Amino acid sequence: MDERAALAMLAGELDPAGDDAAVVDGLVVTTDMLHETTDFPDGTTRYTAGWRAVGASLSDIGAMGAEAVAAVAVYADSEFEEGELRAFVGGASDVCEAVGAEYVGGDLDSHTEFTTATTAIGRVPETGSVRRAGARPGDAVCVTGELGRSAAALELFGRGETERANELFRFTPRVAAGRALAPHATAMMDVSDGLARSLHQLAEAGDCGFAVDSGAIPVAGALAEVAGGRKEALEPATTFGEDFELVFAVPEDRLRELEAATEVAIARIGTVREEGVVMDGETLADEGYTH
Amino acid sequence: MDERAALAMLAGELDPAGDDAAVVDGLVVTTDMLHETTDFPDGTTRYTAGWRAVGASLSDIGAMGAEAVAAVAVYADSEFEEGELRAFVGGASDVCEAVGAEYVGGDLDSHTEFTTATTAIGRVPETGSVRRAGARPGDAVCVTGELGRSAAALELFGRGETERANELFRFTPRVAAGRALAPHATAMMDVSDGLARSLHQLAEAGDCGFAVDSGAIPVAGALAEVAGGRKEALEPATTFGEDFELVFAVPEDRLRELEAATEVAIARIGTVREEGVVMDGETLADEGYTH
Repeated sequence: MDERAALAMLAGELDPAGDDAAVVDGLVVTTDMLHETTDFPDGTTRYTAGWRAVGASLSDIGAMGAEAVAAVAVYADSEFEEGELRAFVGGASDVCEAVGAEYVGGDLDSHTEFTTATTAIGRVPETGSVRRAGARPGDAVCVTGELGRSAAALELFGRGETERANELFRFTPRVAAGRALAPHATAMMDVSDGLARSLHQLAEAGDCGFAVDSGAIPVAGALAEVAGGRKEALEPATTFGEDFELVFAVPEDRLRELEAATEVAIARIGTVREEGVVMDGETLADEGYTH
Repeated sequence: MDERAALAMLAGELDPAGDDAAVVDGLVVTTDMLHETTDFPDGTTRYTAGWRAVGASLSDIGAMGAEAVAAVAVYADSEFEEGELRAFVGGASDVCEAVGAEYVGGDLDSHTEFTTATTAIGRVPETGSVRRAGARPGDAVCVTGELGRSAAALELFGRGETERANELFRFTPRVAAGRALAPHATAMMDVSDGLARSLHQLAEAGDCGFAVDSGAIPVAGALAEVAGGRKEALEPATTFGEDFELVFAVPEDRLRELEAATEVAIARIGTVREEGVVMDGETLADEGYTH
C-alpha cells in the first residue's frame, strides 16, 4: 500500500482526520515527521530546519483558520551537538513567535539520522474552522504569497548558494492570513503538496472543479530567476510543492474586503466550477509532491 | 553532549519544558518518539505498539494531573502494510478511549525503521497542574499500581512468550488517578525512567530528599515470577523503568481520602525528607533508563 492509499484508508477510519489538521473539542492538532535525507538538503542549517519543521505544522493550523497556540518537536539525531540543538530550538522558537504561538520544547531521541517530529496545536475560531470541503461553483480561488520558494531553494542548495537557499527555505506560516480568511473562505488548505495536487484535493473533498489561469499564478521571483524565466518556472511553481501558502475559495463579492484584511498578497488564480481541474482550459494533472 | 545533558540544557532554555509535559495557555502538551530497534522487542504487535506509544504520552498528561483531550501519532515505516497500520491505529484508539481522550490520527512517513512519534494534549485542571517540584519534608511518597510489568515483558519476549508479554506491555495510563490526585499531591511525575531515577528527579526539582522502604514497593507479580522471587525482582522493579505508574508526594493527612478517591491501588513507599534519596537507610543510586 503506498502512502496515499494508506492515508485514504486512515481518513475513512478516523473521523477527525483527512484535513490539514484534526479538530477535536475546540482544538486543532497536526503532526509531521521530517528526515535529513529526504527533507533537509546539504547546507540546511539547524536553525532553518527547526524553523521549517515547526513552520510546516503551524501552516496546517493556519490552513484551518485557527489561532496557533503552541508547538512541540522531537529532535532525534545520532549525537547531540550543543550548537546544532540550540540553533534548532532557536528556529523553532522564532517561527512560533512569528505567528503568536509558543514553542514549548519536546523530546530528544537517539537515532541514526537527523529526524524531527513536530506537532502544532491551535484553537478553533468562533466562526468555526475552514475545511477542505465547501468550495462552491462561482467562488473565486486564490493563493496567498508566492509559489516556488522551496523549488528555488533546492536548486540553490545544489549550487552551493546555501545562505540564500536557507533564507528561501524559511517561510512565514500563514496563520494571520488564515484567521483573517476564516470568516469568508468556503474551503482552504495549504499547498504543501503543490498547487496542482492541492486543487485536486479541494475538488475531491468539495465535489467540485477549478478553472485556473496560468498567467495569474504568483511565481516566486527567485524561482523565475534560477529557472531562467517565468515560463520555465511555471511547472515547478505549480507542482513542486513544499511551499506553505494557502489556497482557498471565497465568494466573489468578498474578495475586495479580504484583500484589505490580509497583510499578505492574495492572488486570484481562477474560479470554482462544477467539475474538472483545468489550467488555461486544459486538464491539470494531479501531480505533485508525495510526503 | 549526552541526552541528559542536552535535556538539562533545553530545560534551562525553554520555560515550559523540564516537566512531564509543557503547560501553555491552559493546555498540557507532551511528545515522544519510539523506534522498533530500541523500544519494541521482537514479538511486539503493532496493536501493542500503538497502545504503548500513545499511552506513554497520555501517561505524561496524567502525571500533570490534567484531563486528556486528544492524541496524534506519526507512523513511519519502510512500507505500509494495511493490517499493521490498522492494528496500530486500533491500539492507539483503544488506549485513548481508556482514558477518555480521542485519537485523531496523524501522519504517515517513509522511513528505514518502524518509528512512531506521538503527542498528547490535555487541559489543566481547575486546581492547577501538578509539577515535579513541590514535595515537602514529612509528606508521604506513594506510587500507583505495580512496578516491573515492562521488565517482566522484556524477559518474556526473550523467551518467546509473546502473548503474555504483549499484554504486560500494554498499560492503563494513569489519567484518572492523576486527576483524582491533582488537588492533593504536592509533586508528581510518572516513573517511565524507573522509580530510582524518578525519585532523584523529584528531589532535584523540589530541593528535598526521600526515604523509601523496599518492603513497601509494589513489585508486579509477573516480574517476581520471571525473576525467580520478589527479592530478585526488587532491583529491576526499582531501576528498569518503562513502567507508566505515577510517583507522587502528598500530605500524610490526605492519604486515606486519596486511597478512597482513586480506583487504582496506591502504595505508600516512604516519606519526603530534607535531603538525600535513601532506600532502607542506604543511598539509592540515581540509576535508571535513559530514553
